[in-house]
Amino acid sequence: MKPTHIEHIGIAVSNLDEAIKYWENVMGLKCYNIEEVKDQKVRTAFFKIGDVKIELLEPTSEDSTIAKFIENKGQGMHHIAFAVEDTNQALEDAQEKGVRLIDKQARKGAENLEIGFLHPKSTLGVLTEICCKK
Amino acid sequence: MKPTHIEHIGIAVSNLDEAIKYWENVMGLKCYNIEEVKDQKVRTAFFKIGDVKIELLEPTSEDSTIAKFIENKGQGMHHIAFAVEDTNQALEDAQEKGVRLIDKQARKGAENLEIGFLHPKSTLGVLTEICCKK
Repeated sequence: MKPTHIEHIGIAVSNLDEAIKYWENVMGLKCYNIEEVKDQKVRTAFFKIGDVKIELLEPTSEDSTIAKFIENKGQGMHHIAFAVEDTNQALEDAQEKGVRLIDKQARKGAENLEIGFLHPKSTLGVLTEICCKK
Repeated sequence: MKPTHIEHIGIAVSNLDEAIKYWENVMGLKCYNIEEVKDQKVRTAFFKIGDVKIELLEPTSEDSTIAKFIENKGQGMHHIAFAVEDTNQALEDAQEKGVRLIDKQARKGAENLEIGFLHPKSTLGVLTEICCKK
């Protein structure tokens, strides 16, 4: 795998509107996009800083993985997304190196990215997203 | 506060050598610096990707805050560090906006940065480092 940059850092939040206010008023960033990702049962908000985005994720349902994450660990950093040339190729590379995949095939994520997740049990605890533009 | 970019993402690891191998062999990044920060009781390893660094943190003592973090939450993402013009000014700004500070004054961190931490209880769960070059 040869990631070019960190595409975004995903942060789980209980209340998106309150979190947007915090990131705008205290951290001085500007929210440029709010988007619902129905199949992941989240509402997301995006901020840009340097070549990285901050993605806030609010669960829209109690059975969302983000709701479960917040229940178990509280609000906070959820995942890091690495930009690659080809998501499926990078998933295959990782699997060949012994990494357990959450997604065996790339699927559609927010902001029209082609995404796939590596399991944190084989990435030393870091929930890792691999993504590329379609 | 007007952060210019994400300086680094801090990741807590139990075994630095094993973690460096993972980040080099699986994630395709190159470790360019290993440094012990004695007053924080950690050994750190740095990787660069785009304009961001990944900082791995291994505890060197059982009473290191990183050892306690791993004991409570397991290995994984620990903090996000935002680069600003002036750490003390940014800490003051954050405090004026109601943020609880871990460090009321900037102190010296790894890689000769002047750093200070905001408390995750007032940053919606994200342990936030503010830093600048001296």
